[in-house]
Amino acid sequence: MALPEAYRNTGGLGQPAGRVYNFNGGPAALPMPVLEEVASELLNWRGTGMSIMENSHRDKKVAAMALEAEEDLKSLLGLGDEWKVLFLQGGASLQFAMIPMNFAPGGAPCDYVNTGLWSDKAYKEARIVGADARFAASSEADEFTYIPSSFDFRAGSRYIYLTSNNTVRGTQWKRFPEKPPAPLVADMSSDFLSRPLDLSDFSLVHAGAQKNVGPAGLTIVLVRKDFALTGAKGLPHLLDYRTFVDSDSMYNTPPVFAIYVAGLVFKWLAAGGGLAETALRNEAKAKRLYDAVDGSGGFYRGTARADSRSLMNVTYRLPTPELEKKFLEEGKGQGLVGLNGHRSVGGIRASIYNAVPDEGVDALVDFMEGFKAVNG
Amino acid sequence: MALPEAYRNTGGLGQPAGRVYNFNGGPAALPMPVLEEVASELLNWRGTGMSIMENSHRDKKVAAMALEAEEDLKSLLGLGDEWKVLFLQGGASLQFAMIPMNFAPGGAPCDYVNTGLWSDKAYKEARIVGADARFAASSEADEFTYIPSSFDFRAGSRYIYLTSNNTVRGTQWKRFPEKPPAPLVADMSSDFLSRPLDLSDFSLVHAGAQKNVGPAGLTIVLVRKDFALTGAKGLPHLLDYRTFVDSDSMYNTPPVFAIYVAGLVFKWLAAGGGLAETALRNEAKAKRLYDAVDGSGGFYRGTARADSRSLMNVTYRLPTPELEKKFLEEGKGQGLVGLNGHRSVGGIRASIYNAVPDEGVDALVDFMEGFKAVNG
Repeated sequence: MALPEAYRNTGGLGQPAGRVYNFNGGPAALPMPVLEEVASELLNWRGTGMSIMENSHRDKKVAAMALEAEEDLKSLLGLGDEWKVLFLQGGASLQFAMIPMNFAPGGAPCDYVNTGLWSDKAYKEARIVGADARFAASSEADEFTYIPSSFDFRAGSRYIYLTSNNTVRGTQWKRFPEKPPAPLVADMSSDFLSRPLDLSDFSLVHAGAQKNVGPAGLTIVLVRKDFALTGAKGLPHLLDYRTFVDSDSMYNTPPVFAIYVAGLVFKWLAAGGGLAETALRNEAKAKRLYDAVDGSGGFYRGTARADSRSLMNVTYRLPTPELEKKFLEEGKGQGLVGLNGHRSVGGIRASIYNAVPDEGVDALVDFMEGFKAVNG
Repeated sequence: MALPEAYRNTGGLGQPAGRVYNFNGGPAALPMPVLEEVASELLNWRGTGMSIMENSHRDKKVAAMALEAEEDLKSLLGLGDEWKVLFLQGGASLQFAMIPMNFAPGGAPCDYVNTGLWSDKAYKEARIVGADARFAASSEADEFTYIPSSFDFRAGSRYIYLTSNNTVRGTQWKRFPEKPPAPLVADMSSDFLSRPLDLSDFSLVHAGAQKNVGPAGLTIVLVRKDFALTGAKGLPHLLDYRTFVDSDSMYNTPPVFAIYVAGLVFKWLAAGGGLAETALRNEAKAKRLYDAVDGSGGFYRGTARADSRSLMNVTYRLPTPELEKKFLEEGKGQGLVGLNGHRSVGGIRASIYNAVPDEGVDALVDFMEGFKAVNG
């Protein structure tokens, strides 16, 4: 598959910029062409004589840039005008509270699917704000190694909440619940824009930017306009989705720089063939890595069940904690960074988001084979 | 007064970078040396082989950078360990809600001083969340042209809220209420770090970064630790100050890039002599501009009462709206941008934050004199 020149991340050991291969779980790798463009116009954005950071968000050029980012994102996802893109702040953690405050007020019921740390946090926050949140399914008994496929949804539930990709455990939804009895609401922070999405059954999707979109400090929310209108009345302005729908996310000063970088990432994705092509590349990258795990004769052991494996976060263990420590240290020495598992579970986690280049995965596989040859 | 070389903003017309003089109300001018440093290490931050945007917030270097920024800020302000610096998101508008949710829950009383748009918004948000907010003083009857000096504070009020500088009307508190009967809480977004502060009577200060601190998308909060502990229980984590006090602002992913830029600005301020020196420069810049207004024989008319004039936002009118339009257009043609007044009031507003160089003010004064000579 031939890639447009601008698509390729030329980072890596031995490159002029001294860049490493970045497997961070998030904040994570950004596309090299995007970073180069940001650096090149940092002192003078589009002829304004100012940095993008110094431009007013009320300026026409900035407003147009933000609207263009919204349109580019809708185009990537194939979203119609029934959807609104919001540029918010506060990360997924603020969404955990805003969603039930808006859509399950007054102790209304809402169903959650528990696939690990992040869905559990979302559930707990819903309980804090007084919603009648319940788990409709959970893989906790099996240490969250898989995505549930049967659900005990309640009649009357206001929404069904799930986490599409689980960075900690390395699991990912392959198919979302069919014919759900309530609108689906999803945290897609860690696989947003990694694949095409059919959002027919969804009413709200949120995603922290710091995986596949841009710098930390920006939360992308996709919301159906008619769903936003059903939100509870009387909330503080900054906790009411309508505030941002009605103002094109400019009720108050938005995170302009992060929106600008995200907009460049959207253009980079479009130049790379859009989400269908992106998904093919991500599948190939993940297959290469899982094959290395599965073909290691048990030296590397994947932690997620095969049918639930994430294409974004490849999690595995080595025979002993000592070997894992050695693996991380030697990898780092070879310019392979961010391979440590989430601090709550340990082990190895290779996060291979969109901007992690094929060469990075190749380098990691080579390293894994060499490490096993010496230590296996 | 001799300035350290690194302090001087070398931007301006005819400079290699093609930079303009930026009088934006916010987002606003940033120091040229800071922008240059950001651009220079954008692809490889401090030898990590990654952009600062790609580094994990859980990495030791990033955590150390954020703690250093906190320490540098406390040092600039002379704050002791009874204070905590928080790096939040959501801007002043989210603080408007968080403050009463935390500190005036259950309909508790809190007093506000109304000096214009932003204090009014803060007051209204307090009402929305159910606090018994009242205005203890207001200059609304005189179109917010001055800062009140007598107050009707209630006994039992949980806090007294004020806006230290009013970007819309160009007014600024010179002295804060003496012996206030409750802790002072202030929005200092637009004059934060422009002068030394005696925070003896304050318990919480918030400031959006996008004036004197850094890029939009970061809210600085200074809070006394013992005051934070008095906050209401049972709030969502992201709306509870304790969450951020207890985690060094890293409960969830913080806006790393904005914190990094803010940290560079703090170092730039320290290199420039700290806040006492900064205040002297700001006073001289403002005097030069107000003198040009007052010495124009009535062609330029300041909108704020002399004793309440802001050193950050110099607001004035011309004889007619047509002349104001011409002034703005011709100024822009000469590289003097962002001089339009706030959209709610019109007129001229020259925002001369810390990073606006003396040369920018000189250029504006020259332009004002030339414009008056032709059109006066």
